[in-house]
Amino acid sequence: MEKYIHELTLKVRDYECDIQGIVNNANYQHYLEHARHEFLLSTGTSFAKLHEEGVDPVVARISMAFKTPLKSGDEFVCRLALKKEGIRYIFIQDIFRKADDKLVLKGVVEAVPTVNGRLARSEALDELLAPFVG
Amino acid sequence: MEKYIHELTLKVRDYECDIQGIVNNANYQHYLEHARHEFLLSTGTSFAKLHEEGVDPVVARISMAFKTPLKSGDEFVCRLALKKEGIRYIFIQDIFRKADDKLVLKGVVEAVPTVNGRLARSEALDELLAPFVG
Amino acid sequence: MEKYIHELTLKVRDYECDIQGIVNNANYQHYLEHARHEFLLSTGTSFAKLHEEGVDPVVARISMAFKTPLKSGDEFVCRLALKKEGIRYIFIQDIFRKADDKLVLKGVVEAVPTVNGRLARSEALDELLAPFVG
Amino acid sequence: MEKYIHELTLKVRDYECDIQGIVNNANYQHYLEHARHEFLLSTGTSFAKLHEEGVDPVVARISMAFKTPLKSGDEFVCRLALKKEGIRYIFIQDIFRKADDKLVLKGVVEAVPTVNGRLARSEALDELLAPFVG
Repeated sequence: MEKYIHELTLKVRDYECDIQGIVNNANYQHYLEHARHEFLLSTGTSFAKLHEEGVDPVVARISMAFKTPLKSGDEFVCRLALKKEGIRYIFIQDIFRKADDKLVLKGVVEAVPTVNGRLARSEALDELLAPFVG
Repeated sequence: MEKYIHELTLKVRDYECDIQGIVNNANYQHYLEHARHEFLLSTGTSFAKLHEEGVDPVVARISMAFKTPLKSGDEFVCRLALKKEGIRYIFIQDIFRKADDKLVLKGVVEAVPTVNGRLARSEALDELLAPFVG
Repeated sequence: MEKYIHELTLKVRDYECDIQGIVNNANYQHYLEHARHEFLLSTGTSFAKLHEEGVDPVVARISMAFKTPLKSGDEFVCRLALKKEGIRYIFIQDIFRKADDKLVLKGVVEAVPTVNGRLARSEALDELLAPFVG
Repeated sequence: MEKYIHELTLKVRDYECDIQGIVNNANYQHYLEHARHEFLLSTGTSFAKLHEEGVDPVVARISMAFKTPLKSGDEFVCRLALKKEGIRYIFIQDIFRKADDKLVLKGVVEAVPTVNGRLARSEALDELLAPFVG
């Protein structure tokens, strides 16, 4: 069981569905991005301030396993856990259908810190995220 | 008949189609934007340079009449004419299905010049676009 | 002043913003579509049932005036009024920034009824929407 | 070195770029989907016919490693190889920047056959794709 530290509830919008009447796969990546950004805002960490100092986390790798498709009108919950491996931050991001808590998607997003556009350890970033790493 | 001065041929991508199997309306706005940008690039006008001088054209109004829906696999042609009314630039942007030249969409996009973020006539912009106004 | 009969509050997602750091214009069309569909769901009208009988409202025309751009993190309210002109349904759809109720966008969306894919008056549709026409 | 069997050249559209001026990650998933569908069309395999018989390949897993970001105006080439592991089809999908053939993205997309909505081996599908498996 993951130790989730953040969750965000959203609802499928019809324009996110494709010819098959289910959410187009690329939209799950949008959901995951939005959930990460909302998590980061919720922590109060100042990424804008880090950015001004040239420090930016960058997504290096994404993997997603699609378990149950979401349909028009479905509400769903994006849950998130954060781990650290070397200099990489690993976001465990799973999506559940709200009605029955059925697993929709298992996602893993790896982010690496960059300083002035180059891969590098950032003490400032590590300090900001330390309280949230599980 | 419009005097079109630019055309761009594109092909529907399946992820642009919605539950009804036709292109979702918002994607036509994407097509029109891409066609305008490709037109501007083709003119050799330096919008990047204008931007550095604080001059930016901004879309103020869009209207679209949907005539025939595009479907998965359809190729289509975006045709463009440019007019000027006062300080506004009016892009006439019509889309035709390639297979039979059937009218898909009639669009009108109004752009206004801004200088340092404020609505204002820009001689530099007027000079750049003058050769293309019909 | 419009007599709005429905409102929906949403929040800008970062992936909806473009190079200029503001919401890309096509996303406003997504917001309007989602607001219309949520309105229709809220009325309890059975569009699925109408659809089974071959009756579908189709968007024929959209016009949008862009007043104030939304930015990353902004919350906004989509307000909707419904009018009828001949067989056309006119959705008045305005968007306001939540923080200060500033007008973001004025939109007008015209829908026409189709019966078995052809433009036609539908008594069933008229009856369903009658209570909401202002 | 992968033995690519299909390639598709596309160009970045400005609306695909985000606040950072680079292509938003979710759009790469769109590029990969479009490239897969164009490959399938190019093979002449009749997926529509398979679909009528209840046979559909479904994406079960996607992983992407982001190497070099694409920017506004960049042209890029989507290259594809196909492998088979058990009943799964593995699409190796790599994207290269056209100007210098620099690697942009390494992607792996796993699809599984479904028959009448349930995971199942499909001889018809296997026969259709056999010539393309590397």
